[in-house]
Amino acid sequence: MTKEILIAPSILAADFARLGEEVAAIDAAGADWIHCDVMDGHFVPNISFGADVIKAIRPRTKNIFDVHLMIAPADPYLEAFAKAGADVITVHAEAGAHLDRSLQAIRMLGKKAGVSLCPATPESAIEHVLDRLDLVLVMTVNPGFGGQSFLGSQLEKIARIKSMIGARPIRLEVDGGVTRDNAAAVAAAGADTLVAGSAVFRGNSAAEYAANIAAIRTAAEAGRVPKLQDSCTHRMRLSDGGRIR
Amino acid sequence: MTKEILIAPSILAADFARLGEEVAAIDAAGADWIHCDVMDGHFVPNISFGADVIKAIRPRTKNIFDVHLMIAPADPYLEAFAKAGADVITVHAEAGAHLDRSLQAIRMLGKKAGVSLCPATPESAIEHVLDRLDLVLVMTVNPGFGGQSFLGSQLEKIARIKSMIGARPIRLEVDGGVTRDNAAAVAAAGADTLVAGSAVFRGNSAAEYAANIAAIRTAAEAGRVPKLQDSCTHRMRLSDGGRIR
Amino acid sequence: MTKEILIAPSILAADFARLGEEVAAIDAAGADWIHCDVMDGHFVPNISFGADVIKAIRPRTKNIFDVHLMIAPADPYLEAFAKAGADVITVHAEAGAHLDRSLQAIRMLGKKAGVSLCPATPESAIEHVLDRLDLVLVMTVNPGFGGQSFLGSQLEKIARIKSMIGARPIRLEVDGGVTRDNAAAVAAAGADTLVAGSAVFRGNSAAEYAANIAAIRTAAEAGRVPKLQDSCTHRMRLSDGGRIR
Amino acid sequence: MTKEILIAPSILAADFARLGEEVAAIDAAGADWIHCDVMDGHFVPNISFGADVIKAIRPRTKNIFDVHLMIAPADPYLEAFAKAGADVITVHAEAGAHLDRSLQAIRMLGKKAGVSLCPATPESAIEHVLDRLDLVLVMTVNPGFGGQSFLGSQLEKIARIKSMIGARPIRLEVDGGVTRDNAAAVAAAGADTLVAGSAVFRGNSAAEYAANIAAIRTAAEAGRVPKLQDSCTHRMRLSDGGRIR
Amino acid sequence: MTKEILIAPSILAADFARLGEEVAAIDAAGADWIHCDVMDGHFVPNISFGADVIKAIRPRTKNIFDVHLMIAPADPYLEAFAKAGADVITVHAEAGAHLDRSLQAIRMLGKKAGVSLCPATPESAIEHVLDRLDLVLVMTVNPGFGGQSFLGSQLEKIARIKSMIGARPIRLEVDGGVTRDNAAAVAAAGADTLVAGSAVFRGNSAAEYAANIAAIRTAAEAGRVPKLQDSCTHRMRLSDGGRIR
Amino acid sequence: MTKEILIAPSILAADFARLGEEVAAIDAAGADWIHCDVMDGHFVPNISFGADVIKAIRPRTKNIFDVHLMIAPADPYLEAFAKAGADVITVHAEAGAHLDRSLQAIRMLGKKAGVSLCPATPESAIEHVLDRLDLVLVMTVNPGFGGQSFLGSQLEKIARIKSMIGARPIRLEVDGGVTRDNAAAVAAAGADTLVAGSAVFRGNSAAEYAANIAAIRTAAEAGRVPKLQDSCTHRMRLSDGGRIR
Repeated sequence: MTKEILIAPSILAADFARLGEEVAAIDAAGADWIHCDVMDGHFVPNISFGADVIKAIRPRTKNIFDVHLMIAPADPYLEAFAKAGADVITVHAEAGAHLDRSLQAIRMLGKKAGVSLCPATPESAIEHVLDRLDLVLVMTVNPGFGGQSFLGSQLEKIARIKSMIGARPIRLEVDGGVTRDNAAAVAAAGADTLVAGSAVFRGNSAAEYAANIAAIRTAAEAGRVPKLQDSCTHRMRLSDGGRIR
Repeated sequence: MTKEILIAPSILAADFARLGEEVAAIDAAGADWIHCDVMDGHFVPNISFGADVIKAIRPRTKNIFDVHLMIAPADPYLEAFAKAGADVITVHAEAGAHLDRSLQAIRMLGKKAGVSLCPATPESAIEHVLDRLDLVLVMTVNPGFGGQSFLGSQLEKIARIKSMIGARPIRLEVDGGVTRDNAAAVAAAGADTLVAGSAVFRGNSAAEYAANIAAIRTAAEAGRVPKLQDSCTHRMRLSDGGRIR
Repeated sequence: MTKEILIAPSILAADFARLGEEVAAIDAAGADWIHCDVMDGHFVPNISFGADVIKAIRPRTKNIFDVHLMIAPADPYLEAFAKAGADVITVHAEAGAHLDRSLQAIRMLGKKAGVSLCPATPESAIEHVLDRLDLVLVMTVNPGFGGQSFLGSQLEKIARIKSMIGARPIRLEVDGGVTRDNAAAVAAAGADTLVAGSAVFRGNSAAEYAANIAAIRTAAEAGRVPKLQDSCTHRMRLSDGGRIR
Repeated sequence: MTKEILIAPSILAADFARLGEEVAAIDAAGADWIHCDVMDGHFVPNISFGADVIKAIRPRTKNIFDVHLMIAPADPYLEAFAKAGADVITVHAEAGAHLDRSLQAIRMLGKKAGVSLCPATPESAIEHVLDRLDLVLVMTVNPGFGGQSFLGSQLEKIARIKSMIGARPIRLEVDGGVTRDNAAAVAAAGADTLVAGSAVFRGNSAAEYAANIAAIRTAAEAGRVPKLQDSCTHRMRLSDGGRIR
Repeated sequence: MTKEILIAPSILAADFARLGEEVAAIDAAGADWIHCDVMDGHFVPNISFGADVIKAIRPRTKNIFDVHLMIAPADPYLEAFAKAGADVITVHAEAGAHLDRSLQAIRMLGKKAGVSLCPATPESAIEHVLDRLDLVLVMTVNPGFGGQSFLGSQLEKIARIKSMIGARPIRLEVDGGVTRDNAAAVAAAGADTLVAGSAVFRGNSAAEYAANIAAIRTAAEAGRVPKLQDSCTHRMRLSDGGRIR
Repeated sequence: MTKEILIAPSILAADFARLGEEVAAIDAAGADWIHCDVMDGHFVPNISFGADVIKAIRPRTKNIFDVHLMIAPADPYLEAFAKAGADVITVHAEAGAHLDRSLQAIRMLGKKAGVSLCPATPESAIEHVLDRLDLVLVMTVNPGFGGQSFLGSQLEKIARIKSMIGARPIRLEVDGGVTRDNAAAVAAAGADTLVAGSAVFRGNSAAEYAANIAAIRTAAEAGRVPKLQDSCTHRMRLSDGGRIR
C-alpha cells in the first residue's frame, strides 16, 4: 500500500451482465483496487450482491478486492467474503455494538480490516479501534445506491480522521459521488483512496474507463497535501472559522 | 402459461461473471422461464443479488423472469423488482404476517403473484390466499444455497397443494435439488414447473445446457399425471397409508 | 353477550378532532360496542393511536370498549390498555409465539380475551386456545388502513371457525370492509359481531350513523343462520364443492 | 430409547448453587434423562443458562442430556450445545422459518433432533419434518418459567401428534406442570417422555427425588395406552365429542 | 422563524377526546407552534398517535405543526406525516444509521427538518448534519411519556449545541418537563423554542392556557442570552469548571 | 465504597457445577465484590446465566453482587435482577437509545447504577449521564466470552473517563483479561475496581484464589495514582503525544 493516491472503481456502476469483462476492463484501465459494494436490503435499503458474485469475478484480475459490507450484522458473513477472495473487508461502524470484534475477526482471516462511517456518524466512533485498522472509509453519500451527489459536509470529517490517523499505516478512503471535479478537494482533505462508480464506468469502453480514472487521479494528486506539511497547518486550511474543535 | 411442463433454470448456478451470456445460453437451450433467486442474508443466511442484477440481464432475453424473493420483509422491494423486469414475483409465506397484502401488491404492479413455502411450512399457510395466486413454489431444499439435495419429504406436500389448487390457473413450481433422476416423481406429485440450477448449468456450454434441460423435461413429462386422471385417484397414488387427511 | 348480532363501529373512521363527540354519537346511534384499532407502525404499516386516546374517550360512554391490538409484541402493553378502559382486548395470532400466554394475561387483567387472524392465517392458529377465548376476530381486509374492500376469500374461514367454536361462548367478529351489502353474507357465514368503519361514519351526524348501523344490522340479521339449524347443514351451505375438510 | 416411559427431571427446578450435586442426585434417584431448559430472554421472557453451564455438569453423570432450546435464532448455537455435551437438541417450531435446516444441522452434529411446540402452535407445524425427528416436545405451559400449571388444552394435541408419529421411532415428550396427578392423562394421550421440574425437586434429597420420580413414573405407566390398542380406539378415547377431525 | 422565543404546546397533554377544540384553544392562547409527539411503542415504550390524528386537527389552525417522530425506522413514514400537514418533521438521531438521508428526505418533501437527541446521546451525533438542519430538539426527559421532571443534566448539552449551531438559521428546541420555573435556565442555555405539555394544558380553559403560555414565555425571555453577548462569554457562564471541552 | 482498589472475581470463570462453593471460596479469599456476567445470546453471541442463578447463590455470601447485564433490551429485566439480589446493576451504553431511563430505573429499584462501554464505544456515550452513575465499566475485551486477552487500546479511554468522573463518587471498573501483569497499568490509568475471571479462578482452591486475588490487588495498588496527584499531571502521564483532546 505505497502509492500516494489509489483509485478504486466500484463495480456497482458496472454492467452486471458482463461483470468479468468489466473487471478486466478497469484492470486494464489502471484501477488500483476493485471496490465491491455489498448491500443486504436491511442495513441499507437496497440489495446489491453477495460473496458468490465476488467469487465469480475473482479469477478475472490479480487486483486488490476491496469489499465494502453495507450489511448488519456483518460477523456471520466475514468468512464467506474472505473465502470469496476479498483482500480488504470493510464493515460499518453503525452495524453493531462490537466493532472491535469484527475488525479482529477480519485480521484473523488474514485480511486487511476497514471501517466505514455513514455521513452522520462522528469520527469518535473509530477513535478506540485505530490500532485494528488498515483502512477508514468515509461515506460521502448515504450508502445504498449509486449515482448520488457528493456531500461536501464530509470534507471536515475526512480532515479530522486524517489527523487522528497520524502516522499509522491506515488508508483513508472516500466513497460517494467522487468525480474529477471534487477529487482535488477530497485529496486535500486527506483522502488517499478514492472510490468512483459512475465517474469511472461512463463511456462503456476500457479506453474511456482509463481516461476517467486518469482524470480523477490527476485531480486528486493535484489536491494532495504534501507529506512535509504539518498537520496543524493542514487542519487550518480545511477548517472553516475554527469549527474543528 | 399453457405448456404442460416448464423448466426454469436458476441463475444462481450460472457464472456470475458473464450472466448476460449465461441467460442467452439457457434461452437458446430451451429454458421456459429464467428463475432468479434473490437472497438478503436475513431471511436466508446468504446474500445472492438484487434488482439491479436482474435489470442488467433483462435485455438479454424475451423469456419470462421468475423472481423468487427469499427476503423479509418483501413489501418494500416489490416495486423495485417489478421495475427491474420481473414477470412473476414470488414471496415467502414465512416472510411476514401480511401475505395477502403482498400478493395484492404484486398484482397491482401488473405482475403474476407467487408464494413459496419452506420445507417445514404446512400448506395451510396458503389455503386462504389461493385466489390471489398465479404460482405456488414448494421448496425441496432449505432456501439459501445452491447445490443441495432434494427433500423427498416434500412430495406429499406437493400432492396436497396440487389437490388444493384444483382447477385454478395456478402453476405449481418446485425448487431445490431437482434433477433428471427425481423429475418424474416431482411431476407425478403434481408439479408443472421445475426449477433446476446445477442440473442445468453443468457442462458450461449451450449445447450441454440444452441436453440437461431436455433430460429433465423428458423425465418430468414421463412422470406427469394425465389430466384425465381424477384427483381422488391421484391422491391415493401419492399418499402413504391414508396420511393425507 | 346475549344479543344475536352486535355492531361495533370502528373509531378509525371517526373524526379524530372530536372523538368524544363521535363516540357519544355512535353510542346514541345504537352501536353495541366501540371498536378501537390500535396500530404501532410495526406489526402493520400505520400508526393509529394508543392507550391514552382510549382513556380520554372512555368517560364518554358506558359502552363496551373492544380494543383490537394490531401491535407486536402485545404483552408489554396489555396492562396499559386494560387500565385505559378496554373491556375486550384482542391480540393477533401472528404477533408472536406465545399466544396462549397473552390470552391468559388478558383474562388475569379481568378482561375478555380475543384473537384476530390476518387474511392469510389459517384457523389452525387458534385451535388449541379456544378455551382461552371470548372472541375471535377474522380480518376481512389486510390490517393497517381503513377504507379497504371486503375480502370474500375469508367467508369460508369464518364458517370454519364458527364450526370450531361450536357451543362455546365465543363471539365471532369480522372486521374490514363490512357494509350493508355484504353483512348478510358475513352473518350467514357465522359472524355475530360486525365491525364497520366508513360504512357507519359516513354522513357525519348521529342520525345518519343510526341509519347506517341499522342498515348493517338489518342485513346481518337477515343473513343469520338460525340457531336451530345444525352445524352440518350450515357447513354445507357455505362450502363450495366440499372444500371444507 | 426402548423404555416405555422416560422421566426427564428439568434442572430449572434444581438448586443452581450446587447443580453438580443435584444432577448426581436425580441420576441416583432414577432419572432417565437430564432435561436442560435454555432460555435467552428473547424467544421467552427469561434467561436461564447456556452451554457453559451444561458443560460444567456434563461430567457428573452418564445420563442422556436432553437440551431444550427456548431461543431464537437457534442455528448459531447448535454447535456450542453439541460440544457442551447435549445428546438430544430440541428447537422450537416457532423459532424461525427454517426448521428443517435446524433439524438437519442437529443430526449432522451427531445428535438426536427434537422440535418443541408452544401451546398455541398447531401440530401441522411439524407434519413435513417428521422424518427429521427423534423427539417431539409438547409444551403444556407457556415456556419461560418453572412452576406453572399444566394446560389441559394440550392433551388433544398430544394425541394427534401420537397419531401422526405412527410407527416412527420418535419419542413424544411433554413439558410443563407435569405431576403425579396428571401423568396418567399425559401418558394416556400418548406421551412417553415426561419432563418434571418442581414435581421432582421438591423435598431436596435424593431419597425424596427418587420417590417423586417413582410416583410420576407409576402414574404414567398406569395411564399408558397398551401397544396393541389400535390408534382409532385410542383417538376415540381422547377426543371429546369428535373434535379430533 | 424570526421570533426570539417560541412556545410549542405539546398536544400529548391535551384532552384527546376534543383535540380540535384544544388545538384551537392553544392557538387562541398564543401558542407559536403545535407540537405533536408521535410514538410507536417500539422506539419508545408507548404509542401515542399517528398521521391520521394530525390530519384531523390540521384544519383547526393555521399554526406551524411541529411533528416530533419518536419512531424507528422513521423513513417509511415521512411522507405520511408531510401529507398529514406537518411543517417541521423531527426524527431521532438514535433511530437508525442513516440520519443524513432522513433529513434530506424531509427537505425533499418541502418540510423543515429537525433532529432530536435523547438525554444520553452526545451532541457529536449531529455535528456532521448541521447543514441539513432547521431545528435541533434536545430531550430533557426520556421520551415516551408526558408529565416527567426536567433533567438538569441537559443544560450543558443545550449550551454546547447552541455553540455548534453558531450563526446557522437553526432553532434550538427543548422538550420535557419545561415549566415557568426552569424556562429561564433553558433559555439561558441557548434554547429558543420551548415545548411544554402539562405546564400549558393545566387549567382546562383557553384563558388559563394563555396565562400558562405567557408565564413560560416571560420566564424564558428573561433568561435569554442577548444576541450581542459573544459565544465565548456565553460558554463560560454555562460551563462548570471548564468541563466544556 | 471506600476501599482504594476493589477486586471483583467474575463467576463466569467459576465451576458452574458448584457455584455456591465457588462463591464462598472467593468470599473467603478476599473478593471485594462478586461479578456476575449475564449474557443473552443476542447483545453478545453467548448465553451465560440469568436472574435465577444469581438468586440461588445470593444466600452464600454477604458480599456485594455486581451484576453486569450484557443484554439488550435491559429494561424489562432490571426488576428481576434487583429481586434476585443484585447490589450494582450495570447496563451497556450500546443496549438502546434510552440509557438515562435505564439508569433512573435501576436507582428507583434501590440499586447502584452502572454503565458499561464496549471497546469501540467512545466515552462521549456517558458524558450526559454522569450524574446518574455509581459505576462505569470499561470493557477491555469484546464482551461475550471469558479467557480473552486484555486490549491495551482501552487504557487511554480509562484515563479519559477517570478525568470525566472528576470528584464524583463513581467507581471506575475494568473487565476483560485483567491479570497480575497488567493490573498496575489498569490502575495507573485510573481504574479502581478490577474484574478478573480466569486470573482468579485458576488453581481451584480457596488458598490459590486468595493468592491470585492478592497478587492482582498488590499489582493494582502499586500502579495506583495517588489521590494528591492532580488530574492534569495524571492526564499527561497517560496520554501519548497530546492525543487526549
